[in-house]
Amino acid sequence: MPQYKAPLRDMQFVLHELLMLEHITRNSCISRHCKRELVDQYLEAAADFCENELSPLNQVGDREGCTWNDGVVTTPTGFKEAYQKYIELGFPSLSADEEFGGQALPNSLGISISEMVGTANWSWGMYPGLSHGAVRTLEHHGSDEQKNTYLPNLVSGVWTGTMCLTESHAGSDLGIIRSKAEPNADGSYAISGEKIFISAGEHDMAENIIHIVLARLPGAPKGTKGISLFIVPNSTSMLMVQLASVMQYVVVQFEHKMGIHGNATCVINFDQAKGYLIGPENRGLNCMFTFMNTARIGTAVQGLSASESSFQGALAYAKDRLAMRSLSGPKAPEKEADPIIVHPAVRNMLLTQKSFAEGGRALVYLLAQYADIVEKGETEEERKFADNILSLLTPIAKAFLTETGSESAKHGVQVFGGHGFISEHGMEQIVRDTRIACLYEGTTEIQALDLLGRKVLQTQGAMLKDFTKIIHKFVEANKDNAAMQEFIAPLAAANKEWGDITMQIGMRAMQNPDEVGAAAVDYLYFSGYVTLAYLWARMALVAQEKLAEGSTEVDFYNAKVTTARFYFKKILPRVRSHVDVLSTGVAPLFELDAEHFAF
Amino acid sequence: MPQYKAPLRDMQFVLHELLMLEHITRNSCISRHCKRELVDQYLEAAADFCENELSPLNQVGDREGCTWNDGVVTTPTGFKEAYQKYIELGFPSLSADEEFGGQALPNSLGISISEMVGTANWSWGMYPGLSHGAVRTLEHHGSDEQKNTYLPNLVSGVWTGTMCLTESHAGSDLGIIRSKAEPNADGSYAISGEKIFISAGEHDMAENIIHIVLARLPGAPKGTKGISLFIVPNSTSMLMVQLASVMQYVVVQFEHKMGIHGNATCVINFDQAKGYLIGPENRGLNCMFTFMNTARIGTAVQGLSASESSFQGALAYAKDRLAMRSLSGPKAPEKEADPIIVHPAVRNMLLTQKSFAEGGRALVYLLAQYADIVEKGETEEERKFADNILSLLTPIAKAFLTETGSESAKHGVQVFGGHGFISEHGMEQIVRDTRIACLYEGTTEIQALDLLGRKVLQTQGAMLKDFTKIIHKFVEANKDNAAMQEFIAPLAAANKEWGDITMQIGMRAMQNPDEVGAAAVDYLYFSGYVTLAYLWARMALVAQEKLAEGSTEVDFYNAKVTTARFYFKKILPRVRSHVDVLSTGVAPLFELDAEHFAF
Repeated sequence: MPQYKAPLRDMQFVLHELLMLEHITRNSCISRHCKRELVDQYLEAAADFCENELSPLNQVGDREGCTWNDGVVTTPTGFKEAYQKYIELGFPSLSADEEFGGQALPNSLGISISEMVGTANWSWGMYPGLSHGAVRTLEHHGSDEQKNTYLPNLVSGVWTGTMCLTESHAGSDLGIIRSKAEPNADGSYAISGEKIFISAGEHDMAENIIHIVLARLPGAPKGTKGISLFIVPNSTSMLMVQLASVMQYVVVQFEHKMGIHGNATCVINFDQAKGYLIGPENRGLNCMFTFMNTARIGTAVQGLSASESSFQGALAYAKDRLAMRSLSGPKAPEKEADPIIVHPAVRNMLLTQKSFAEGGRALVYLLAQYADIVEKGETEEERKFADNILSLLTPIAKAFLTETGSESAKHGVQVFGGHGFISEHGMEQIVRDTRIACLYEGTTEIQALDLLGRKVLQTQGAMLKDFTKIIHKFVEANKDNAAMQEFIAPLAAANKEWGDITMQIGMRAMQNPDEVGAAAVDYLYFSGYVTLAYLWARMALVAQEKLAEGSTEVDFYNAKVTTARFYFKKILPRVRSHVDVLSTGVAPLFELDAEHFAF
Repeated sequence: MPQYKAPLRDMQFVLHELLMLEHITRNSCISRHCKRELVDQYLEAAADFCENELSPLNQVGDREGCTWNDGVVTTPTGFKEAYQKYIELGFPSLSADEEFGGQALPNSLGISISEMVGTANWSWGMYPGLSHGAVRTLEHHGSDEQKNTYLPNLVSGVWTGTMCLTESHAGSDLGIIRSKAEPNADGSYAISGEKIFISAGEHDMAENIIHIVLARLPGAPKGTKGISLFIVPNSTSMLMVQLASVMQYVVVQFEHKMGIHGNATCVINFDQAKGYLIGPENRGLNCMFTFMNTARIGTAVQGLSASESSFQGALAYAKDRLAMRSLSGPKAPEKEADPIIVHPAVRNMLLTQKSFAEGGRALVYLLAQYADIVEKGETEEERKFADNILSLLTPIAKAFLTETGSESAKHGVQVFGGHGFISEHGMEQIVRDTRIACLYEGTTEIQALDLLGRKVLQTQGAMLKDFTKIIHKFVEANKDNAAMQEFIAPLAAANKEWGDITMQIGMRAMQNPDEVGAAAVDYLYFSGYVTLAYLWARMALVAQEKLAEGSTEVDFYNAKVTTARFYFKKILPRVRSHVDVLSTGVAPLFELDAEHFAF
């Protein structure tokens, strides 16, 4: 496995030159102390930690996995020690409120550190990663007492958090969960039920684990409107014993998984476990959405991470591995064959990974910036607008970046040929680890319905228009810039088409609501490709401006422009087939009765 | 893991109704005794064996893997016993020459049995599977003495064969292999060198293993024209001791792989091992092509198998699993939610798998039929024509069916949601097992170059024209059939476009040979989608005719027509993007210097 190297220059390009982090944070009330120097210091410290502490543990985690012995979970060699170091370096508290010990730095910085952690070692990163969502949920929905009890230790990282939603019969459809919460005399609740797929559900890295659990109160309405949210703290911490004296839950088993072996995915059986209601009764799913949205952006990071790590691995191999001669004549005549980077198919795979990694980085950081504005923007209007854009782009980023991350991981294996299938090279691990990203936190198909159904059609296109107007403004501002025409013309066409196909689907859906489900996945891919095209055009513009200003980093900026060109020529045309397919509508999917799929 | 169920009805449809096996074999001199009743008997016997013996061992093989102890390899529990049964049932000798104990049944029957074996348990199937290639190589290139020595036991299955090509530095590029063969005084050769990725390289299932090895003679020309082919028999068989008295080779290690854990993938170190030249000196690669072409069709079967097994698993789950209500209103109001097969996105994935499995079956069996005609067709002209079509379609089938097999496997996991990531359900194993199919026997990119470079452009399009003429004839014959218009019109357009883009690429390649490499993968996908469209149109025609004749199997034939319709509406439009992408040519791939891919 190639050693992870944090792409600091590219991260700085996105944060400082594309998104102008310092400028944005100065103009709203987000972290006024967030100067470029400070950001760069944090990035460098995190890069050092990820490259030297986490990356070497990535294959160890895959090989060893977690061990489970009668409910006691031991994480792979080195995981615990790395976590202690992570706490000492102050990373857990980065973007949390100052009131509870946080550093109140912007999400835009936090996400870039999450990217490095996740790319170096995704399984490890999930332990602290899930705590972010628990912190957010408590910040937004916890009572003052709950905040005071749980936040300081969650923020510092001494405790970690989980998210207990799924039951074996209920995943995408949380409306049918069966876990119960019965009121105790002391105002707490007795939680009973079996939860599965609990990432970081039990481990030896933290003093205490705080479970955020969905369950039903007695007599609660059926479906999603009868679900409440509870905190169930683990009992292993001395501090918690008073709160959790009658708490009972058991980690009953581990799941045997395709990947993320270093993370403990648990089945937890709650049996009259003591829990505390968060937020109003029966509104648990609404409170949980805070957690889920954070987790969805976090999962989008996993897709970006897969693109970045498989790109790094494949690039190093492609420069080194010799096979055959270039069709246009030997390029390394002194060697017995040419390095495979001379072959067009290899270059195509590398550039695809690169354009997804760098484009995905821009998208994820942009989302984090909107999240900052939602939380701390100066005006209500500014916050509302940012919230709309964030709501629209979250399912796109989650589904599109995880699917393209899987595609990049596939190319990583393919560039290595047969060696890609062999574990020691690390490329197949990326495929296995990142496969979960298209499933958890809502599958690609669920994200697609969220995008097209809830975000686009239910708002009569208003939310989409907020974003296509941003693209339109960018197009208008650059329509006379000759150097940008190769990007502006296709972007303008795709942006217009986005509105057209939305209208087309909306009309059809009035006749048959299943048209929405039939179109959603292709619509999501279309939206993803166009969103990345917009960001690649913006990146090309920044690069061209820097070159025009006489920057000495000519190679870096030229690479941005040529990668944008690659994206527009070789990737964006994929929208064509998605439009053609979705235009054929729902009928071809429903001609066959369920009983006649096989004979 | 759902129990494998052989799709006998569909296999019979392809063999008897689409390809008219009995008719074809009666009209050429292939196995005149190959009556429909006999074929069906074999199919049923194989189905019984695969469903009841092999399928239950599939997860066992994945979980246990092979164990290696100082060169002694033990296969997973039950593998050895199943192989004994396989021999007793006479399956190994099915399509081999009668002279050496074979049954001389057509490849078309053999391939359908390979499909069942491979779908039930691919790792197991590789042990006997590799022997087929060794048999073919010896049949074509071995001396009479070699045939008499090796074929009887290989044909009966008492011995197995391997294929030792790859070295750690040389896979796609066999021209740079370093293994040496030095003449011994007795006419044999001393073979030295390390070979990797040797599937079934060592195991406990057969009495002897016959290695087919590529090596260089002293003073041989550099590159592919200096490679010779050798037989290196294992020494463990008493019978062989006289032949192999000074033979030395050691299995030095196992590869740790993403999948196919039940198959022993070995590194073999040949150290002055005694070998025997097959065929002329320095013509080894040509002889090996016989082996490789057989192996490529065999690998295409692996893709089809992945589509079939993931379809079977996903279909059963989609009918059973409940989640959410159909957007067009509850479909199972008596249950707490609808089965997920009501959701358009799930249906889309299932139909995609189904159209790849059934379309892939038609393609693979068609190839086997052409292989029968190449070997035993009555006239030289008939044999030559079949050889051309087979040469053209082999890289398409190998690459396209393995890539679509991987796609189907992905859908299988996705239909299961989070459960797809969990090993016990068996869906993730299919992803891991089938991933190798896009790599070995020539990667997708190598197949694409073989198709576009060697088969299409080097013959000035003649080989392609042979096939597009077949499609054209089919279009002409059905152009007045109103019920077929939905298929005929798009097929005719795609067939014409096939010629057009070939011409376009050919013109560009005259300016810059790298245009071939830049276009090849998209060209391959285009060719695959059109080839399957042709077969789906043919299958729809057969089904319509059966319905018109008043067949009582109305549901079966209707399902064929509606699946064909699905394919034309939802899958074939994918060609659009491939054409758009390849029309942008080579330039966007070569703007970036190798040194500027990352900073």
